Formats: sequence, C-alpha cells, structure tokens
Amino acid sequence: MLTSDRQPNLRAALEAPFDFAARQQKLWGALDTAGVDVLFLPASQSDLEYFTGVSRRAPSFGEIGYTNHWISGAFISPGEAPLFVLTRHFQEFDLPEGVAGDVITATETDDGGEVFRRAFDSYRARAKRVAIGARPNEEHCEHEKGMSERIALASRSWAETTIELRNHRPDAELIVADTITNGIRRIKDEQEIALMRESAAIVDAVMAAVTPHVTAGITELDLAAEVDLRMRKLGSPGASFDTGVWAMGPALGRDASVRVSGNELGAGSGVSFDFGAITRGYCSDFGRTIHIGEPNDEYLAVYDIVMAAQEAGRSAAVVGATGGDVHRAARAVIEEAGYGDWFRHRTGHCIGLDVHELPYISEEDTTPLEAGMLFTIEPSVFWPGRVGVRVEDVFLLSETGCASINEHSNDLVAN
Amino acid sequence: MLTSDRQPNLRAALEAPFDFAARQQKLWGALDTAGVDVLFLPASQSDLEYFTGVSRRAPSFGEIGYTNHWISGAFISPGEAPLFVLTRHFQEFDLPEGVAGDVITATETDDGGEVFRRAFDSYRARAKRVAIGARPNEEHCEHEKGMSERIALASRSWAETTIELRNHRPDAELIVADTITNGIRRIKDEQEIALMRESAAIVDAVMAAVTPHVTAGITELDLAAEVDLRMRKLGSPGASFDTGVWAMGPALGRDASVRVSGNELGAGSGVSFDFGAITRGYCSDFGRTIHIGEPNDEYLAVYDIVMAAQEAGRSAAVVGATGGDVHRAARAVIEEAGYGDWFRHRTGHCIGLDVHELPYISEEDTTPLEAGMLFTIEPSVFWPGRVGVRVEDVFLLSETGCASINEHSNDLVAN
Repeated sequence: MLTSDRQPNLRAALEAPFDFAARQQKLWGALDTAGVDVLFLPASQSDLEYFTGVSRRAPSFGEIGYTNHWISGAFISPGEAPLFVLTRHFQEFDLPEGVAGDVITATETDDGGEVFRRAFDSYRARAKRVAIGARPNEEHCEHEKGMSERIALASRSWAETTIELRNHRPDAELIVADTITNGIRRIKDEQEIALMRESAAIVDAVMAAVTPHVTAGITELDLAAEVDLRMRKLGSPGASFDTGVWAMGPALGRDASVRVSGNELGAGSGVSFDFGAITRGYCSDFGRTIHIGEPNDEYLAVYDIVMAAQEAGRSAAVVGATGGDVHRAARAVIEEAGYGDWFRHRTGHCIGLDVHELPYISEEDTTPLEAGMLFTIEPSVFWPGRVGVRVEDVFLLSETGCASINEHSNDLVAN
Repeated sequence: MLTSDRQPNLRAALEAPFDFAARQQKLWGALDTAGVDVLFLPASQSDLEYFTGVSRRAPSFGEIGYTNHWISGAFISPGEAPLFVLTRHFQEFDLPEGVAGDVITATETDDGGEVFRRAFDSYRARAKRVAIGARPNEEHCEHEKGMSERIALASRSWAETTIELRNHRPDAELIVADTITNGIRRIKDEQEIALMRESAAIVDAVMAAVTPHVTAGITELDLAAEVDLRMRKLGSPGASFDTGVWAMGPALGRDASVRVSGNELGAGSGVSFDFGAITRGYCSDFGRTIHIGEPNDEYLAVYDIVMAAQEAGRSAAVVGATGGDVHRAARAVIEEAGYGDWFRHRTGHCIGLDVHELPYISEEDTTPLEAGMLFTIEPSVFWPGRVGVRVEDVFLLSETGCASINEHSNDLVAN
C-alpha cells in the first residue's frame, strides 16, 4: 500500500507546488559565494528541473536531436530570474506543460549560435555583476593572471555549449557547477522526503506483488516487464533506471553485470532485483534477492552476511560520519566473512532527482553526512558460478539516526 | 516474421563482427582533413560504439554517476589506435563484454584529473602530429592568431571534460566533432542496412501482434507495455526511445506531446503508436495510427492526406535532393489540404545507432541526400479535440530510388 494511501495527510505534500523561488534564492547565494557571474543549466537534466521546474524528457537509448539542440537550457545569475533558451522542437514536443519564465526560442531555421550569444549578452547586461567581456589581445594575457568573468556549467552540459561560451568569452573562467548545485540539492526538505517515501513505497508494493512469480520456468525478462508495468500502474511515469533481474547460483556462470536476460529461471538460483520508481522526478532505488528452491548452506550464510553488512553501514551512518566511513563499516562485515573479493561495488550513493547523487557512500568520499540526506546502502556478494545476494534500501539520515524509507522486509525468501 | 527468419542468408551479416579497423581508418582520414590533432569520444555514446565497439549502457531517467565519471571515453588521433580512459566502475559494471584496446583506468580513489591529463599527454606524445603544447604567456597571444593544436570533441561530451581540456591546453582550439563523425556514419554499409532491416522487422512484427488489442477498454499504458515486452522477446535489448501510445479524437482534448497515459481507450479515437527497437545498437523508429470504432469523415480524409504526404516525401527523396526538399514535398500535401497548422513537426531525420541522426528531413537542411542514407518520413496531423493521424517508416535511399525498409501495411485499420 502506498505511503500516500496509508497517510492521506501526505497527499498535500505530494501535490503541493515546489517553491522554486526559494530554491533560486539559495542558488543565488551559492553562486555569489563562489564568485560565479552566470550559470548555465542544460535542458533535460535534473539541475534545471530542481531550480526551475522544467522537467526532463524520458530517457532514450538512441539520441534524440533537434537542430540547435545544444542551446537548450537556462542562464542564472545571482539575483536574476532565469533566462531560458530553447529550441522550438524541444518546447513543443518535450515540454507539454510549458515553461514559466522568460524564454528565447530558436526555431530550426535560426542561427543557433547567434541566438545563444544574443541571449547570453542580454542576460549578462541585466545581471548585477558587470561582465568584463572580451578585451584586446595585448591585455588578454595579463588578464589570464587576474580576476575574470566566471561562468559555471553543469558537468554534463554539452561540449558544444561549452565551446561556444569559451569562444564567445575567451577571457572567461569556465568552471563546473556541480559542487555548487549539489550543495543545495543534497539536503532534502520535508516535501522532497515525502516524495522519496512515495517513490520507495511504489517499489515496496511492486516487490511484494512480484515475489510470488519468482519461480522456476519464468524468464528474467518477464519479471522485469512485470516490475516496469506495475511501477507505471502505481503512478510512476517510468523506471528511474534500467530494471535489473538476474539469477546467480552454483549452476550459473553469469555475472551481475548482465542485468537481465531471456533466460528461464531454475531452482537453485538466487534472483536479484534492482529497480526504482519516479514520483514527480524523485527516484527510488531498491534491491532484494529471492531464492528459487531450497537454498544451500552458502546462500543462507551469505544472505545473513549481506544483511549484516547493510545493518553495519546503517549504524555507522551518523551525522558527521563520511560516506567512506559507512562504506568501510559495511565492507568490513563482508571482508571478515571472507567474501571481500566478491563485493566489488561501492556501498551506495545519495539519491533524489538523480539515482546517483553526491556524496557517494564510497571509499573515497570525505563529505561529512548531514541530516536530510537520503542515500542507498546496497552491499552485495556476487560470486559467479557460486552465489549472488544483494540488498538495497534508501536510508534517511536525521539527527537521531539513520532509518530506511523502504518498508519491504529483507527476510530471506525462498519460493 | 523477422527478416532474418525469412532470409537465413541475413543471419551471417547480423552476426558478423563490425570492421572497426576500417571505420577507424576512415576516421583518421577525416580527422587529418579537418586538421584535428586529437579527438575525444565520451563513453556511453554512439560515436564511441561506432568507431570502437564500446557499447552504450541502457538509458536512465535519473543520472547514473561514478567518481571520475567525466574522464570516461577514448582519444583518437590520425594513424593511432584509440586510447581508452575509463573509471573502474564503468568498466566493471557497464561493460560486461570488456574493452579491446589500450585502457587507462581510474579507480574511485584516483585523482581523475591527473589520470586524464597523463593519458592525454602520453597519447599526444605517441601521435604522429607533434603537439604544440602549452607555451609561456608572452608567446600565448601570438599563438592565438596562429595555427594551434586542434582538439575535437563529440558535441555531447561533458562540459567537465571540455573544461579540463581547455585548462590543460589553454592554446588549443576546441571544436565540435559531429560533422566529421556524422560524415562517416551517415552512409550505411550492407551490414548496417541488414541490421536496420532487422530492427524494422521487429517493429513490423510487434505492430502486427499488438493491432488486435487496440480496442475500447484497454489503456494506452497496457499497449505500450505490450509493445516494449514484445520487442524484447524478439531480441531487442530495449526500446530505442520511449514508446508512445496516445489517443486523439473529437472527444479528446489531449495533444500528441503527452506520449502515453493510463487512460482507457474508447471508440471514436485514433490511437497513434511511435516506437522503435534495437539490433546490435541500430535503431528503428516506426509509427501507425489505428482507429477504434467507425472512423468519421474527417479521420478518413486526414488518413489519406497523411499517407499521401508520406508518399510525396518518398518520391521527392532522390540522390542530390536535400532534407529540406523532402520536407517541403511532404508538407505541401498537408498544407494544400488545409491542415498545415496541425503539422508542426519536421518530416523526419536520418537514423542508425542514434534515433535522430544528421542530416534531418527538415526545412533548414541543405545537405544533399546520398545513396546509403536511411531516414524516416513521418508526417502527421495532430488537431487536439478533433483528429490525430501519423505514419512513420524508415526509408533507404539508393541510386534507383527511395524505399521503405518497413513492410507493415499503412492501410487504414479500424477495430
């Protein structure tokens, strides 16, 4: 049963508009602190959705492209409302809900570069900081050493957009904006947490409904299709990432990197599920392993080890600890049990509008965890030809502790 | 029935390895002609798959991210085998088939920037052209006016990668590589055409199987799920883009930009399908509209107009004509019938490893069409609250004419 059905008071939070003005206010402050004159956020990415409400289109295996596609996005300077630059096609066919704000549109017959530069210049002219602009060559090198106009771009902005900005503003310092935007996005507010709970409740409900079907004779593909359809019927516009359903066991040489196959499932295998739903852009990411037939002793032992590793990670996740600390705590349990070579993955990652958000719950991460962060703890033991077990839940960190927002049991299930 | 089942001789072409050496040879020549010293192709994009065989991972709504993710891709210089730079996570979890070639790996604890710069420098050192490299500031501005190292990047490379290259090589000219790579990719060889035919045969077979289910009471979502599952059962690893199934008609105010809903279908509506399969990376893109119940006079008239528009586009598609010519020919039929305001889309686009490839079959395109190009012709009339009809097939241009590689009938169907 979905969180919103259990707790009707959640409905309001789920349907309330986002406070984009407040989000932009925070962004202005962070840009100002970082000395950024103007930020570019590309279309169809989560930063633009978070700060302006311009949603992402569904993902596509083969690229979708329009003439002048590279210009699509928005400029944001401290104290200034965003200026959107969009192609006609993107606006008409990928944004049925429209765009709230100033929009400069490039049709397919426009010179995209000209439209983009004009938009940039007009926005910079109105921005509070004064652009330094281009200067003659003799000053150029002096300027290299001095202060310059600073332009930030989301890390996944197009190279074409970045090169256009570099050529239009040869003096400008170009920087990656992600630490600035993530610094705001990584702490979720009550409404976001409610949406994350709803997204988690969808996968909980789907796992419960699909579990009885995990029996000999069905294919991984049929189970994956069932998962995807059920998520959509529960209100998710799609999967937050590609659904994985894969069997491992003594009779199967296959590794976990092959996420789904047409193989028929058979007794003596552990079937791992890895999938997530979407609620107003907010992603869940969930995993369980279900055994078909009577588990052997190693599966039973590994199942307990993996669950203990997740619990060790959870209890190490306190305000002020780092992602590295949580990773090492979870990993230690698996290493001590002698399965360290078969836990190859990081322990987890923060999650929100994107499936993988910074900070990561990984060896290298030194970011102190804060209350209001949501992250996965997803230890696994994948030993091809022998045993495969994985569990994944999304955890919410608060001042009083770290608790899963998923409610589906992680007790051993053998069908 | 799939092309490969009907024509067993196709099976060989479908399973033969791609000749990446020949593709790289062509690329070397094109880079040399364009005066490019080194090209960067990012991971999980079609250029890298086309030239090296490093495949794309499944698309994801919420971004997937790894530490140092931005470094992932390959450098290619004229006459030199590619050098791959990849994160450990991407290699282990997204490339189960491995990578053939020199790979420099960055683990999550490595300094990604250092690894990337080292890889760039070592590759440039071995490349035939001599890198100009960085020079003291006093020479810098002189050099701005002279010839410089030229680095090309795929247009959708990350801004983070582009900025790193800009900072590492302040003198270098950064350019977008797409005209270079597309110039090679847009002409398909016999093997690619066979794969495109197979991808088209999958959607033909799925449309035939799903058509009887297009009846009152079923939802758009159920039909979309049925399409997706059947494509996968016929061997497609997924959908080439997000499957659309949407009903329009006098009783429905809904526009075509809402691609799928949970709505139950009812009599008096035209249900448009837009979907594509994948065969070894090669995409199909297909569309039909099926009516539920007795069509009214306007639907019957518009159906004929849209089919006539597609035929007009097909007959205008000859070697040497431009995408603009084909677009205008198809559009004229719809305009003359008085429905021009409701044909808002371009007429089509080339297609291959990506769904939308250059050149586009669109007003602005002045590229002369060549034999061996495959492109869609997909006219539509979408008038919310009144009528919606669309048809889409992939056409192969040859010296002797332009023919659809889809074989599914476009006769009017009313269930």
